[in-house]
Amino acid sequence: MVALFPQHIIARKRDGHALSREEIGAFVRGATDGSWADYQLSALLMAIFLRGMSAEETAHYTDAMMRSGTVADLSAVPGVKVDKHSTGGVGDKVSIPLAPMVVACGVPVPMISGRGLGHSGGTLDKLESIPGFRTDLSLAAYGAQVAKIGCALIGQTKDLAPADKKLYALRDVTATVECIPLICGSILSKKLAEGIDALVLDVKFGRGAFMKTKADAKQLAQALVDVGRAGGKQVRAVLTAMDQPLGRCVGNALEVAESVACLRGEGPEDLMEVTYTLGAHMLVLGGVAKDTAVARQQLEAVVANGKALAKLREIVVAQGGDGRVIDEPAKLPQAKQQVPVVSATGGYVQSVDAYDVAIAALRLGAGRAKAEDRIDPAVGISGLVKVGERVPAGGTVAIIHANDAAALAEAQALVAGAVKLGQEKVKAPALIDEIIG
Amino acid sequence: MVALFPQHIIARKRDGHALSREEIGAFVRGATDGSWADYQLSALLMAIFLRGMSAEETAHYTDAMMRSGTVADLSAVPGVKVDKHSTGGVGDKVSIPLAPMVVACGVPVPMISGRGLGHSGGTLDKLESIPGFRTDLSLAAYGAQVAKIGCALIGQTKDLAPADKKLYALRDVTATVECIPLICGSILSKKLAEGIDALVLDVKFGRGAFMKTKADAKQLAQALVDVGRAGGKQVRAVLTAMDQPLGRCVGNALEVAESVACLRGEGPEDLMEVTYTLGAHMLVLGGVAKDTAVARQQLEAVVANGKALAKLREIVVAQGGDGRVIDEPAKLPQAKQQVPVVSATGGYVQSVDAYDVAIAALRLGAGRAKAEDRIDPAVGISGLVKVGERVPAGGTVAIIHANDAAALAEAQALVAGAVKLGQEKVKAPALIDEIIG
Repeated sequence: MVALFPQHIIARKRDGHALSREEIGAFVRGATDGSWADYQLSALLMAIFLRGMSAEETAHYTDAMMRSGTVADLSAVPGVKVDKHSTGGVGDKVSIPLAPMVVACGVPVPMISGRGLGHSGGTLDKLESIPGFRTDLSLAAYGAQVAKIGCALIGQTKDLAPADKKLYALRDVTATVECIPLICGSILSKKLAEGIDALVLDVKFGRGAFMKTKADAKQLAQALVDVGRAGGKQVRAVLTAMDQPLGRCVGNALEVAESVACLRGEGPEDLMEVTYTLGAHMLVLGGVAKDTAVARQQLEAVVANGKALAKLREIVVAQGGDGRVIDEPAKLPQAKQQVPVVSATGGYVQSVDAYDVAIAALRLGAGRAKAEDRIDPAVGISGLVKVGERVPAGGTVAIIHANDAAALAEAQALVAGAVKLGQEKVKAPALIDEIIG
Repeated sequence: MVALFPQHIIARKRDGHALSREEIGAFVRGATDGSWADYQLSALLMAIFLRGMSAEETAHYTDAMMRSGTVADLSAVPGVKVDKHSTGGVGDKVSIPLAPMVVACGVPVPMISGRGLGHSGGTLDKLESIPGFRTDLSLAAYGAQVAKIGCALIGQTKDLAPADKKLYALRDVTATVECIPLICGSILSKKLAEGIDALVLDVKFGRGAFMKTKADAKQLAQALVDVGRAGGKQVRAVLTAMDQPLGRCVGNALEVAESVACLRGEGPEDLMEVTYTLGAHMLVLGGVAKDTAVARQQLEAVVANGKALAKLREIVVAQGGDGRVIDEPAKLPQAKQQVPVVSATGGYVQSVDAYDVAIAALRLGAGRAKAEDRIDPAVGISGLVKVGERVPAGGTVAIIHANDAAALAEAQALVAGAVKLGQEKVKAPALIDEIIG
């Protein structure tokens, strides 16, 4: 079969043809069993990035990726199992406060998350900054934990969509991340395989998101809703703005601490808002609230009465983590240096460039430049000012947490450049844009 | 330098930007020292394939590839050093008669050649069919031999343009070969590194060539001339047709024998014509003839008086080969079986498909399907009819030289199918199409 040689399939996509189910199958199988070399996978990924895939190709791709491994069966767990997935943004730690809140309201949340992708952090990397916390549970242990405490926050296991694991890691280091069909296949192959009944998607757009424009985000959201429903799930997508980082912290341990604050009701306003909005849709899809207004009251109640925080502690302990970090954030890894970024002039914050802040975090060691790079859990940025806030002359706009002097200097310059002050008063921007599905 | 992370450079080309000298330098350095992973190199190669590179980018790329290793210094050798490069064709043994002719006319020819891959043969493989002939000289020995006898015919050493060696191997298996800026960089980086002052290019087009259309060949020729000149060399390109094989022989030892015939003035007309044309431009660029008409007379003279043949013998002996093959071609490797391909019907040769003949030679063992394949020097095809010739019913259209019965049968069928006879008289096609530069 000449047409199934890797270089012939690559050449067909390179030349703008639609790939057949068999060709896409050969590619995904090649990623799974190693019969395609990494350099061939990445060449085809780039060709797909630049030439695109049709809705039909995307559905074949998603299906082949899902079937590249085990498809989990959580039918023994009662209730409508609902997960949330975010397309990723700078400072997006929403899963960490959200899952315990939703579970505390009675909806099981089986959640399989990813690692850092491009300039954006990953929930797993954040969770692993908690001493002892294990994200590498087997699918059997994951199912058992969901049945027992309503939630498990784990990483992609080897047997779940292994093709996606391989391709996700390659895309991260070959500039082939921001591609709707590839994102769609990556997200949904795992979600369709994790045993859920319904899915709420947080599709972000703006400087700090994969999708820079709202039009692209909307296109992705619609593709996700369509392909997810084709796979037999309830799916709803929320479009949210991501021009400035979400919350005030970027960096793994720093974002865990901010998530804990959120569950105490003390999180930054924007982080609280996104978490409550997504959670409300999850409660509605989960069948425990008749509408999102009622759902929101339920969520606020489990924050106020401490049940959501208790649920996070329960999850952390169940997964081998040190539950004391919930009450003593100082037990999280701390960077050697904590240096403020000071603004000589004062003014109102006009904008905080999420992308530049993300690059600063990457340079500090909070993210990966290559798939095999190790992450430093302690480093990052905290205390970031938000758009609309007033900063006095000589005031602090952020604090850099660093373990390396050269990286510190670069991060200081990047963050200083990312925060634009001006004399004009500006309002905090709208966060929640549109609901699709 | 954030901008020099591999994925940022890949993303810039992916998005259609021109890369800077520094970015291209980082890419080529990454290929040389392994600091870029293969999957990153291939992603950028695909992005370059689909987005292109400007003349300026191509010049930076070529320069960086040249400087990835040693640049030979032949300044101690008097005279204008001129080399020839062909983009490759079926039966293209021109370098073997050409170099001694040009050297016999007083122009030094330092020539570093490649091996054959796929349907196209390599000068090195042909030369190595001469018993004892060594092509693996060091750059120092190469320089010394050029100084002493005016010519050395060697292979790419490890220290010469190592980035090209790496990237060429990747392109071959990632469907990123047929890309003018990449081809241009690959050819010229090696040529500019070999210590020459001037270069004549034979850019072939047609069924048996790398460039299938004349338009593509012309574009490549212009790019080669422009980038070569940007590198400070005199460059001229000749466009030549490659629909039928060049000469009557395809196969390593068979092509050496045909080259020797050529130096006796007894070569096939088309081979003589291409050799004289390219040689004439080399003599003009080399400063020993005022125009190509005068140059041609000089070349014909060194063929007639035996000086060109004597020079080939001198080169063969200098590189450890058995000089007696020049006078006794039977000392070249001989295949066990020599079987004619007979045509039942007679007629005029309408076409001889160079690609099919090449595949027949490949099946016989004359070429490599994979880089690690071994070549059989003895096998191939001789006595091929040429377009326009008349074949009687029951006449021979070619002779297959084989060491394996199964391959023989396949090659017979392929060659029989490659030669199309008809009742219409046809003229021999034009060979030399256009001179660029």
